Amino acid sequence: MATLRTGRMEAFSDGVFAVAITLLVLEISVPDGSEDDLLAAVLEQWPSYLAYVVSFATVGAVWLGHAAVTHYLDHADAVLLRLNLLLLCVVSFLPFPTRLIAETLEHEDAGKVATTFYGLALLAATGLLAALWRYAVHEQLVRPDAGDDEVAVLSRKLTPGLAFYVVMIGLGLFLPVAAVLGYLAIAVFYLVPLRSLRRT
Amino acid sequence: MATLRTGRMEAFSDGVFAVAITLLVLEISVPDGSEDDLLAAVLEQWPSYLAYVVSFATVGAVWLGHAAVTHYLDHADAVLLRLNLLLLCVVSFLPFPTRLIAETLEHEDAGKVATTFYGLALLAATGLLAALWRYAVHEQLVRPDAGDDEVAVLSRKLTPGLAFYVVMIGLGLFLPVAAVLGYLAIAVFYLVPLRSLRRT
Amino acid sequence: MATLRTGRMEAFSDGVFAVAITLLVLEISVPDGSEDDLLAAVLEQWPSYLAYVVSFATVGAVWLGHAAVTHYLDHADAVLLRLNLLLLCVVSFLPFPTRLIAETLEHEDAGKVATTFYGLALLAATGLLAALWRYAVHEQLVRPDAGDDEVAVLSRKLTPGLAFYVVMIGLGLFLPVAAVLGYLAIAVFYLVPLRSLRRT
Amino acid sequence: MATLRTGRMEAFSDGVFAVAITLLVLEISVPDGSEDDLLAAVLEQWPSYLAYVVSFATVGAVWLGHAAVTHYLDHADAVLLRLNLLLLCVVSFLPFPTRLIAETLEHEDAGKVATTFYGLALLAATGLLAALWRYAVHEQLVRPDAGDDEVAVLSRKLTPGLAFYVVMIGLGLFLPVAAVLGYLAIAVFYLVPLRSLRRT
Repeated sequence: MATLRTGRMEAFSDGVFAVAITLLVLEISVPDGSEDDLLAAVLEQWPSYLAYVVSFATVGAVWLGHAAVTHYLDHADAVLLRLNLLLLCVVSFLPFPTRLIAETLEHEDAGKVATTFYGLALLAATGLLAALWRYAVHEQLVRPDAGDDEVAVLSRKLTPGLAFYVVMIGLGLFLPVAAVLGYLAIAVFYLVPLRSLRRT
Repeated sequence: MATLRTGRMEAFSDGVFAVAITLLVLEISVPDGSEDDLLAAVLEQWPSYLAYVVSFATVGAVWLGHAAVTHYLDHADAVLLRLNLLLLCVVSFLPFPTRLIAETLEHEDAGKVATTFYGLALLAATGLLAALWRYAVHEQLVRPDAGDDEVAVLSRKLTPGLAFYVVMIGLGLFLPVAAVLGYLAIAVFYLVPLRSLRRT
Repeated sequence: MATLRTGRMEAFSDGVFAVAITLLVLEISVPDGSEDDLLAAVLEQWPSYLAYVVSFATVGAVWLGHAAVTHYLDHADAVLLRLNLLLLCVVSFLPFPTRLIAETLEHEDAGKVATTFYGLALLAATGLLAALWRYAVHEQLVRPDAGDDEVAVLSRKLTPGLAFYVVMIGLGLFLPVAAVLGYLAIAVFYLVPLRSLRRT
Repeated sequence: MATLRTGRMEAFSDGVFAVAITLLVLEISVPDGSEDDLLAAVLEQWPSYLAYVVSFATVGAVWLGHAAVTHYLDHADAVLLRLNLLLLCVVSFLPFPTRLIAETLEHEDAGKVATTFYGLALLAATGLLAALWRYAVHEQLVRPDAGDDEVAVLSRKLTPGLAFYVVMIGLGLFLPVAAVLGYLAIAVFYLVPLRSLRRT
């Protein structure tokens, strides 16, 4: 039963990740009446592109981490399935704060609110991924043949980003654009170390 | 053939569940011109967040129940495939009443209409899931190695929520917000007992 | 290689069917300012619900037929993969004519145009599914162990609906609502015989 | 681990391709108030249909190429997974330039900007697919049993389209509609040779 359960959980999760990451593009548009100077209108959407890239990179990193976590799973229990649903709930919520960033990043006050809100959502997504893994390790749901060092490496990779998010959320109260670039840096940071992880 | 059939049915169902649950976020937005006080505008969307959480929890619970049902399936027959399509039809309809809740919950009369409509849709989704399981049991589509007690436990878990929905739909005619919170409680109730189920 | 190819083709097709069938709900909405009489506004959307049900039933029937076709496939060739892409192209186009029906069915002239356009799209989807199957049979892509009678039954099931669509498209030029109900009847007809098919 | 990794990568990629290709239809609509002459309004949307077909054919061709690449993959490494995420990032971005084409192709200046932007996005998608394959070959991630000639054929198929895109992007600065037709021709060109490839 455990194997099947993990199979359905992976298939459903892949579906939610794929839809959420693809819906991000719906937030990008040029205003009506941009035909007269479309080049300027397209270039003016830079906050949309930035928000798209940051959210895509973050969801991509969380998906990659999720694939690593489920790779080491021997089986799932009921709490893990619910933690996973909670993670998916936050991931599929991300298009909303992404759109707020796209719409308000250039506005002084609104940009700060949107950046904080966005940072909290990103923190929740990566925090729940880390919680999923820690729960699996704690409840011994991890495959017996997984080496202790592999488990420790994955634990180390999934945690420190959380502190960076807290710092960036604080920074966003003063410098929203810098904070969004910081979120991008964290996502890239998540994407990079998983590479050396996988080579071991 | 039966195995393949179940495989395609699961893959297609997972896809529909994943898309429906992820489309829910499209219903959340702040009005144009919210830049001046984005914090207030974001907080004012609480009915959207509540509707998002209730629908996400319900679709998640139905998906979890669906995964349990198909786990016990030995093979599908033609009626089961059509019942499943009917269930998916209701599940993928849910974003519409969810949006009605998000838009009208604070309005006195409209909130009652939206809550009733929403409750009927949730009742239809969970009722069809229970019907799917009862049909499978009745037609002996369940795997021979599934224990009678396991079958009985799943039957008991999938049924009583229906009566609660009827009660909550009645309550919604007077107290819409309380009814929506009741729908959330039912979804959580669905999510919780499946856990003890799966541990047996 | 053939097996893998079929696996990817099925997974991608299931994804497109699942997204297309779930996007149909986005066409349903009540006009702004419906709060004052939401019940009337919800009931007035009956063309949206009808269009949703007809499109859902048709895409569901095409998916069921597609699952039957790929079940009998031994392997895919390059032409089949392209025919399949063409079928998916039409299926994922369906939300557009569905929305036209939802918006204009009650309007005298526009309803006739929308119904004709919709019928042609439904005819193209079911016609391409029949073509996919006939091509597979003709090119001997069908599994050797599939009985001749099974192949003949599936051929007979996938074809006659096409003539009914032509009749209904003609009818739609005079009685749009009757034609849409006819489209629903054809989809139900597709859904029903597949059941006896599968029992053999 | 390699096998699992490839399985998740394929499932997630299929999901993103399927959602991106199906979201394209959301860009098609008739203006409000088209009921009086719906036939004319539907016919006037030809740039939308053209953009839909070109983007569908291109994403379909990239998906087909992606299925061929992963078919030959023995396992994935971390760089390949990130290259794949980058490819998916571009593919799921395509609905935005597709909508720009649909909205502005008939406008003289805006059409040129939109066509150039669209061509760059198509070039990026097909270029990243070619890069994915070349990286896999270079890093010896290809299955040992894949024949050298098969590898060479796939390399030759995935590359020359890039030069055509550069030519068409140049042409689009003067004749936008001709360039879009050229993009369609390139997509068809990608779709055709893969057929003879697969027959070997």
